[in-house]
Amino acid sequence: MFDTESASHLIQLALREDLGEAGDLTSKATLPDETRLRGRIVAKANGVIAGLPLVAMVYAQIDPTVEVRLICRDGDTVEQGTLVAEVEGKGQSVLTGERVALNFLQRLSGIATLTSQFVGAAKGTKTAILDTRKTTPGWRLLEKYAVTQGGGQNHRIGLYDMVMIKDNHIDGAGSITEAVEAVRAYQPASGVPIEVEVRNLDELREVLPLNVDRVLLDNMTNEQMCEAVKLTAGRVKLEASGNMSLERVPAVAATGVDYISVGALTHSAPALDLSMKIVRL
Amino acid sequence: MFDTESASHLIQLALREDLGEAGDLTSKATLPDETRLRGRIVAKANGVIAGLPLVAMVYAQIDPTVEVRLICRDGDTVEQGTLVAEVEGKGQSVLTGERVALNFLQRLSGIATLTSQFVGAAKGTKTAILDTRKTTPGWRLLEKYAVTQGGGQNHRIGLYDMVMIKDNHIDGAGSITEAVEAVRAYQPASGVPIEVEVRNLDELREVLPLNVDRVLLDNMTNEQMCEAVKLTAGRVKLEASGNMSLERVPAVAATGVDYISVGALTHSAPALDLSMKIVRL
Amino acid sequence: MFDTESASHLIQLALREDLGEAGDLTSKATLPDETRLRGRIVAKANGVIAGLPLVAMVYAQIDPTVEVRLICRDGDTVEQGTLVAEVEGKGQSVLTGERVALNFLQRLSGIATLTSQFVGAAKGTKTAILDTRKTTPGWRLLEKYAVTQGGGQNHRIGLYDMVMIKDNHIDGAGSITEAVEAVRAYQPASGVPIEVEVRNLDELREVLPLNVDRVLLDNMTNEQMCEAVKLTAGRVKLEASGNMSLERVPAVAATGVDYISVGALTHSAPALDLSMKIVRL
Amino acid sequence: MFDTESASHLIQLALREDLGEAGDLTSKATLPDETRLRGRIVAKANGVIAGLPLVAMVYAQIDPTVEVRLICRDGDTVEQGTLVAEVEGKGQSVLTGERVALNFLQRLSGIATLTSQFVGAAKGTKTAILDTRKTTPGWRLLEKYAVTQGGGQNHRIGLYDMVMIKDNHIDGAGSITEAVEAVRAYQPASGVPIEVEVRNLDELREVLPLNVDRVLLDNMTNEQMCEAVKLTAGRVKLEASGNMSLERVPAVAATGVDYISVGALTHSAPALDLSMKIVRL
Amino acid sequence: MFDTESASHLIQLALREDLGEAGDLTSKATLPDETRLRGRIVAKANGVIAGLPLVAMVYAQIDPTVEVRLICRDGDTVEQGTLVAEVEGKGQSVLTGERVALNFLQRLSGIATLTSQFVGAAKGTKTAILDTRKTTPGWRLLEKYAVTQGGGQNHRIGLYDMVMIKDNHIDGAGSITEAVEAVRAYQPASGVPIEVEVRNLDELREVLPLNVDRVLLDNMTNEQMCEAVKLTAGRVKLEASGNMSLERVPAVAATGVDYISVGALTHSAPALDLSMKIVRL
Amino acid sequence: MFDTESASHLIQLALREDLGEAGDLTSKATLPDETRLRGRIVAKANGVIAGLPLVAMVYAQIDPTVEVRLICRDGDTVEQGTLVAEVEGKGQSVLTGERVALNFLQRLSGIATLTSQFVGAAKGTKTAILDTRKTTPGWRLLEKYAVTQGGGQNHRIGLYDMVMIKDNHIDGAGSITEAVEAVRAYQPASGVPIEVEVRNLDELREVLPLNVDRVLLDNMTNEQMCEAVKLTAGRVKLEASGNMSLERVPAVAATGVDYISVGALTHSAPALDLSMKIVRL
Repeated sequence: MFDTESASHLIQLALREDLGEAGDLTSKATLPDETRLRGRIVAKANGVIAGLPLVAMVYAQIDPTVEVRLICRDGDTVEQGTLVAEVEGKGQSVLTGERVALNFLQRLSGIATLTSQFVGAAKGTKTAILDTRKTTPGWRLLEKYAVTQGGGQNHRIGLYDMVMIKDNHIDGAGSITEAVEAVRAYQPASGVPIEVEVRNLDELREVLPLNVDRVLLDNMTNEQMCEAVKLTAGRVKLEASGNMSLERVPAVAATGVDYISVGALTHSAPALDLSMKIVRL
Repeated sequence: MFDTESASHLIQLALREDLGEAGDLTSKATLPDETRLRGRIVAKANGVIAGLPLVAMVYAQIDPTVEVRLICRDGDTVEQGTLVAEVEGKGQSVLTGERVALNFLQRLSGIATLTSQFVGAAKGTKTAILDTRKTTPGWRLLEKYAVTQGGGQNHRIGLYDMVMIKDNHIDGAGSITEAVEAVRAYQPASGVPIEVEVRNLDELREVLPLNVDRVLLDNMTNEQMCEAVKLTAGRVKLEASGNMSLERVPAVAATGVDYISVGALTHSAPALDLSMKIVRL
Repeated sequence: MFDTESASHLIQLALREDLGEAGDLTSKATLPDETRLRGRIVAKANGVIAGLPLVAMVYAQIDPTVEVRLICRDGDTVEQGTLVAEVEGKGQSVLTGERVALNFLQRLSGIATLTSQFVGAAKGTKTAILDTRKTTPGWRLLEKYAVTQGGGQNHRIGLYDMVMIKDNHIDGAGSITEAVEAVRAYQPASGVPIEVEVRNLDELREVLPLNVDRVLLDNMTNEQMCEAVKLTAGRVKLEASGNMSLERVPAVAATGVDYISVGALTHSAPALDLSMKIVRL
Repeated sequence: MFDTESASHLIQLALREDLGEAGDLTSKATLPDETRLRGRIVAKANGVIAGLPLVAMVYAQIDPTVEVRLICRDGDTVEQGTLVAEVEGKGQSVLTGERVALNFLQRLSGIATLTSQFVGAAKGTKTAILDTRKTTPGWRLLEKYAVTQGGGQNHRIGLYDMVMIKDNHIDGAGSITEAVEAVRAYQPASGVPIEVEVRNLDELREVLPLNVDRVLLDNMTNEQMCEAVKLTAGRVKLEASGNMSLERVPAVAATGVDYISVGALTHSAPALDLSMKIVRL
Repeated sequence: MFDTESASHLIQLALREDLGEAGDLTSKATLPDETRLRGRIVAKANGVIAGLPLVAMVYAQIDPTVEVRLICRDGDTVEQGTLVAEVEGKGQSVLTGERVALNFLQRLSGIATLTSQFVGAAKGTKTAILDTRKTTPGWRLLEKYAVTQGGGQNHRIGLYDMVMIKDNHIDGAGSITEAVEAVRAYQPASGVPIEVEVRNLDELREVLPLNVDRVLLDNMTNEQMCEAVKLTAGRVKLEASGNMSLERVPAVAATGVDYISVGALTHSAPALDLSMKIVRL
Repeated sequence: MFDTESASHLIQLALREDLGEAGDLTSKATLPDETRLRGRIVAKANGVIAGLPLVAMVYAQIDPTVEVRLICRDGDTVEQGTLVAEVEGKGQSVLTGERVALNFLQRLSGIATLTSQFVGAAKGTKTAILDTRKTTPGWRLLEKYAVTQGGGQNHRIGLYDMVMIKDNHIDGAGSITEAVEAVRAYQPASGVPIEVEVRNLDELREVLPLNVDRVLLDNMTNEQMCEAVKLTAGRVKLEASGNMSLERVPAVAATGVDYISVGALTHSAPALDLSMKIVRL
């Protein structure tokens, strides 16, 4: 689930952009070679941690003799002051990796934290929180991993592992029914699941007999969604979508939809505040 | 200033993660080959645009016969409803590129927009808004470009183009003075500028005679910063740093510091809301 | 059909070899940054256009803010003076891309043009014009695309998508019949089509009962080909091959063969004369 | 001078596009593993050979146990029937490399041959034949090497190793004089040579005192060129350019210009006819 | 069997690490360009040759005009003084490739030679000598090729092409029987062969009815192995493993086991002594 | 000194060749996902350790949640039974990395161990032990690092960082003196050190006045070397070379030469015997 390949690639990009040719000039000029430091990564706010494997990988790349102790695990809830991880070794190496390691950890923990807030807002219902394809280019698999660490579930990975029929596809094919048939004819035995986006109850009624895997209720009011749930009566999974804020989630979840998908999880999560305290050994 | 090389690389990553091997199954199955569409990228919120070249590059990569018309330019202020760009061509291609193009544009415009808000908060003073190294791994040059489009200025690019002496370096070298001397001895004629971080006025007094290029005032109160500005009397540039919120910026700028650096510009900017409306031709 | 992957790769090679590290010294030294230019790509000879997507891709790589308007489409017939495309933007960028863009467009248009002349020479018959594997290394897919824009058809892409049994293979296997059987035994259910090369009518007679997909008539006289067509009576497709000049094609097509394959389409097509006229804005 | 790096890269591209995943199906199916063949590369037309190192490199890549004997050397003049090289080894390997090896050798020999014809047309004068930047993308260094094997000389490699001031640069800078000064100010001590393009004798007169390295006479009549040579009196090298055909070269060379540059050498040279005769061992 | 892809990749690495940016300074400074040399690769000890294709590939990469004549073939037994190969061409090129070519040839010939000694020690029995996965990272396919040239056979290539159930897997699954069943359930129709490691005869008795492909007798005494052979009575192939020295092999082979696997073949083979004598032409 | 870049590259190659597409079939089929294991890397023979950073890097690549504790440091002397390192984490990951990690560690520790034996044989003298360019292609920097961990010193890295004039270079230039002059003229101010190889005392006498940096005494007897040391009287550093065995080193070192270079350190060092004991948690 944690994708080491894209992690490894982004670490290379990150080190190249932070170090250039000349490297960490300040540390090389001021720290004696024999200085050893311990860096303690500590939470400065409450949240959920995600991305610890990247801390280990960053230091393995910079200087594999730096020891990395992961005190927390991904998915752990932390409070302000919680010790999350420690790194210890050659002082220059510890400082050189500090910012890159934190940039990864803060971003992914920010996503896990925001996700856990949405999941909390739907607590007590059977509604799951989903991410979207609104991810940072180059980071999709890592961000979708962070969503799972916050208690969310993953929507499709990309355009290739699930069909999502929207209005333009329906226009292209002629009707909802024709669109679904076109998809089934395209790759008869592929097993790729099909979701259809509907904007009102009439469209929902047209989809229901088609036996698709999921229906997306696009920008409906809570009342419309209640109606949709009743109408559907469990025959297909329902996903609510469209500007879902933390404030609105409890009411939407109460309608009985199966999923709420939230673009903000990945496109607008603020970083979780974490810092590295340096101790001399 | 706009870095086409990292742009081009991230586009490749983004297309690979969104398309996989199978590509956009839905569009291929439902849209006739001859269908031509126009996509109109429209702002759904007020903000500042950044990243339009990436829209052109994404479509050039997917299908170079798609025409891209950039109506706005990077740095333009837009209001809800402003038409930002249009793409027109083969329908399957227009839809396939929609999300990747928006993911780039929304993220960078989000950064430009947040930057412009900080710049606005310092208006009427001589204080410039700076970014930091707290960027998304792989995205540093693009994000720093977005900061400039929002009216901000760039701090150092990485560890290699400016020296920043913090407390651990001072400990390593023995004192502030020794640290500055160590740096100057390290690369005598390199011309790399030097900044020193100070936590109180005593440290500032020690730095002033050393003739460095900039001093970072770390987590000081507004009163301390006022003192620092007086004490310095223009002999060196001063940068205020540490949890700078939009609310606090006017008062900090009023102290007379030259720069305020803000990590949130790049690590916590929410995406600017933009969408692509599809029109059939 | 147009292969963006190899296009993208060749563009990178082309820009690297033309720009080196230092870039376009002349334009950078002489053109003010704010100068904007329009470049009008105009035909200086009659011909068929191929390769316009590459013009868009070249400029997207150099400077994505340059606007590219493709006036013609690939496959269009142009006369001397026809406006083919326009580019407009920062002057330095327009000039920097001029030669690379034209090098792609002239070469592929040259191939499309020569192909269209061969297709014209076979007009009124049912004979199609085919390319060969005699392509420029690194350019096969682009050159085969250009052939289709000139009205030709593609022979096999490489050694892997069609079997072509020539004399050395027949010697190796023992006889024509044994060679065909060896191929069928090698990958029983692969569905890869089989063509056999014959040098005289006796060999043709041996092939006919073997139920292969195509027979290549190697270096036969027009009379032999007439005989071959009669003998075959439609039971298998016939391809004429061997030094096919424009002058000879009408007579060969008149024999009734299904295909004429022409190596010169890709290995000896002169570039189509196109130039970029620069206008100051 | 022969660039093994781009050679090696193009060979990889060529083998990939010819072999795909499945390889040479025909040879693998029909030739017994133990069959050994000798391939004799023979000229089928008169010309000049270039590209023999590529034949060795292609086979070293496919099967390094194939022995390659280069009978001719690059730059040798051959007649129809001349044995150029021999390869000998495992039959499947010999056949698999045949077309790729010939595609390289025929193209580069075609360029060397056309170059030698232009050089021959200028024989008895001091005028050298130059190539241009009108090369096949990805092939510039190899094609410029082939030009030297045909007796030509290389013009600049790209935009980075020589300045060439044309009308648009002159417009940008204000005048010829200002353009030359702008270039010299841009990189004062770079040592990069400067060439200026002129369209008439007035422009030539303006250039002469500027002490540049070369002047390009653009599309002038033979009479104008005679005048230009007189006017210049050896103070600067003169290059004649613009649709230089084989027929016109003797008269142009007779005007006394130092160079004639010919785009056709690289953009319109037909392949030299070479084939590989296979002998069973 | 000889893997040109990893060979080609290692040659690139080797040339880069030996030549750096500056290349062979000594040869370039001291050898006139026109000096031609012949290098004669001669055995300085008895052994078995492996790796000759790499000699051809190294020189094709450095300078494809250097002629390489392979006098011996891989697998040949040589004595001190045997001429193995000759290279001839430009003197600088011959010397530049000497060490890299020998480094490949000496290492692989060392492995082939040690293997042939083990094979010799088992002569007169039906026992085959196998290699292991204890290979030099990056070199596995080449080293396993060298083992075959010395008369050995290849064990599995990696973790992916044969299952090898050891004690930890047995603990994980619960028992030998459960482990074998787990493997068969994991990929029912994969056809991947299964080997089980046993440490005593009781474990062997448990394995025999399970119908696996091979059993590894781990660190058994010769007496135990005799028992194992009797007990097995040909129902499954037996592999002896664990610190197998040249001295011990005859007795182990005499027990009747089918295979002896020897890690030292690849992890501890000394290089075969070979040198290149240079002759001036 | 430890080169993380080539380490990282070889780890990728090693994992690819051991895991293929399918990965560690046995562990995946038999070990429950929740099984956690500890692997204890223990010496099974006396020696010197080198390569521990690679163990950390291998596991960071396979599964960064595996904890790696390096008990020893590179350069430590170990005895049979010494615990060298521990890894702990998901059982499948621990087993999957076992062989690759050991392959690196055993090879480099083998080199460090053999080096330390040569260093020990020269103990009590001022003679240093040097490596050569006879390294495993792709491994040069890692192997030279291992030599330093065993107490040896590094000779030149490649052909580019030191000049080594041998007999063929002397022949090429005309004489020793001319060769040295040619080198100095080639790159006058490069500062690259110069070594000259001599085969007898006459050649040594010719070299001494030339003020080079080092002289290599090629295949001399101990008596000749004694003479050479006397003759030189400290004016230049002397390196003894040519089939230096452990047995011979004490006598050679006693002659007073400054260096003894030993190809066997890198081309013939047997692996150090190390194994990983697995403990269930």
